[in-house]
Amino acid sequence: MIQTFSYELLFNFVYQVFLKMGCNGEHAILATRVLLSADMRGVDSHGVARLSGYVRLWEAKRINATPNIRVVHETLSTATVDGDAGLGLVVAPFAMQSAIEKAKQAGTGWVAVKNSNHFGIAGYHAMMALDHNMIGIAMTNASAIVAPTFSVERMLGTNPIAVAIPAHNETPFVADFATTTASNGKLEILQRKNEEAPLGWVQDANGQSTSNANALKEGGALLPLGGDREHGSHKGYALGSIVDIFSAVLGGASYGPWAPPFPAYVPMPTNMPGEGLGHFFGAMRVDAFRPLEEFEEHIDNWIRRFRSAKPAPGYEKVLIPGDVEREIEILRSKNGIPLFDSVVKDLNGVGEKMGVEALINKGE
Amino acid sequence: MIQTFSYELLFNFVYQVFLKMGCNGEHAILATRVLLSADMRGVDSHGVARLSGYVRLWEAKRINATPNIRVVHETLSTATVDGDAGLGLVVAPFAMQSAIEKAKQAGTGWVAVKNSNHFGIAGYHAMMALDHNMIGIAMTNASAIVAPTFSVERMLGTNPIAVAIPAHNETPFVADFATTTASNGKLEILQRKNEEAPLGWVQDANGQSTSNANALKEGGALLPLGGDREHGSHKGYALGSIVDIFSAVLGGASYGPWAPPFPAYVPMPTNMPGEGLGHFFGAMRVDAFRPLEEFEEHIDNWIRRFRSAKPAPGYEKVLIPGDVEREIEILRSKNGIPLFDSVVKDLNGVGEKMGVEALINKGE
Repeated sequence: MIQTFSYELLFNFVYQVFLKMGCNGEHAILATRVLLSADMRGVDSHGVARLSGYVRLWEAKRINATPNIRVVHETLSTATVDGDAGLGLVVAPFAMQSAIEKAKQAGTGWVAVKNSNHFGIAGYHAMMALDHNMIGIAMTNASAIVAPTFSVERMLGTNPIAVAIPAHNETPFVADFATTTASNGKLEILQRKNEEAPLGWVQDANGQSTSNANALKEGGALLPLGGDREHGSHKGYALGSIVDIFSAVLGGASYGPWAPPFPAYVPMPTNMPGEGLGHFFGAMRVDAFRPLEEFEEHIDNWIRRFRSAKPAPGYEKVLIPGDVEREIEILRSKNGIPLFDSVVKDLNGVGEKMGVEALINKGE
Repeated sequence: MIQTFSYELLFNFVYQVFLKMGCNGEHAILATRVLLSADMRGVDSHGVARLSGYVRLWEAKRINATPNIRVVHETLSTATVDGDAGLGLVVAPFAMQSAIEKAKQAGTGWVAVKNSNHFGIAGYHAMMALDHNMIGIAMTNASAIVAPTFSVERMLGTNPIAVAIPAHNETPFVADFATTTASNGKLEILQRKNEEAPLGWVQDANGQSTSNANALKEGGALLPLGGDREHGSHKGYALGSIVDIFSAVLGGASYGPWAPPFPAYVPMPTNMPGEGLGHFFGAMRVDAFRPLEEFEEHIDNWIRRFRSAKPAPGYEKVLIPGDVEREIEILRSKNGIPLFDSVVKDLNGVGEKMGVEALINKGE
């Protein structure tokens, strides 16, 4: 039911698929690296399992494999990037790199992106800042499957936020989370197992909270972080809205219920008010605020103090954002990436269609 | 049980108290304005009800009434401000103004603050950006009363985030929220009424979720937004941590469990790793990303579309962040500010101590 593949084998397969789509070598390598970073970090819903989705968007001419990605507006600390309908997996690193370059000059850099597509995991892009002793921030809007507090209608995507903060001797702080109670990926796991969802994850088509894990498919919606008003869902709704406005309204992408859907079979919304999907990136030089060595001393101290907080009964330790993903990455670097048979089959379907040699598990 | 006072009457009383503390006229006006903005917007826990707390901190020599607030580090788009132990109510507007000035030159401005104190409501400071066609961001760390996911120990404050986004014909988007499920203020209301708290708000001294609204006083802790791991508390914990690191580690304030406590009777933590409380502010010029008129057209459209989302049964309409506070502000501008007798008594105790004429309700 599960097969395990080495990073290198999967990399080569995905890379070949992007080349066949018409990406140049540099873009194909970058897109593959971003996509596989999700598998390596255990965010399986955003890794190679999505490759067939990207290919279908390309077939539907919603993804341009040879985009002219460019800055269309800028100031000393900001830029707006037109992704030219390219793969978000390529557009996003370009934009994040622009933010880093701005930060080198101005202390911080902030880049809004329009006319892009799904960019993989937000954490990859935020983490690009770490090597430069910068704090990295990445966010994106997404297909509307989330209902604001008090709403029946789906108005927002799961709109994730990632923040990566460099440390010195400690491992870095890397938060990367959807602004909903639970992600769609977690809901799909419950559907597969035929299990119920905890209340607060999803509502039905009438706007009632439900434990039916299939409610989203049946016209319902995911709920903002908090779940209901009494538990602070208006805060999750506000966060998701901020991500939507920063990512799409600021740079000229399509926002709210008009965000372009990821599944290629879902028709594009009519009267879209902007171009494609949007992202927002930030890079802040640590030494734009205080000397680097001082910051390093204190962020290490922060991390150690939180890691050593007294755990509640039944829990081994208090974690720092990014700890879980880092542990998975270490394991998978050694043991390879486990994929469900259904994902392998899906990938080999893509391979057959695109003329790329099938993935075959060399076995352990 | 409730008395109502005009804005002007309360303003004069609070202003006189700040003058008696030794604030100069400009600082006293500013501090009063920030404090009363909370009462006007219905955030009663952060308004005049806190005045006696500020006075006690001043008596304990933890607040300097004549601070030399200054920029101690800067780049084109950033600054670090030393608040010189001044009232946060004065230090924060200074720092936010610095962020706005940076943004005029560099497109965006970002200011970390150390050596400050409680700054009132975050929303006031974020909203300073609106008149400049800028997006405003404000956050602060606070006394540690929140337990991270899996932790028994209190490690973070309620660490609020405010984001204010200007609109054109529509009223602006103003989110201002603690990164916990519920604020301490809401818990105090339940204590007063002798009611239970919803599960997910608070845990007891053993780290177990509880409906005991007094749990915080009995050694428990507030819970991060999400409430428990299954409902995404690790996301609320990450958000609160980001606020702590941006507000305190970046600028040199005291962070995590070492944040200085607001109640003057709570001893200062030992071995504090930084100076005072910390804040973080941002200002982004909208036209640093796209022409102002384009942004205005689309943010108005965003707001109208979300306001017109189909409401769930039993709800009148979908709200935009800031709607509730704005409606209260309109009402209170007309009808005055209602205060509990206990708050009036507390204020008059301050007045007596400081030699300021008592607040007397002129009645309707």
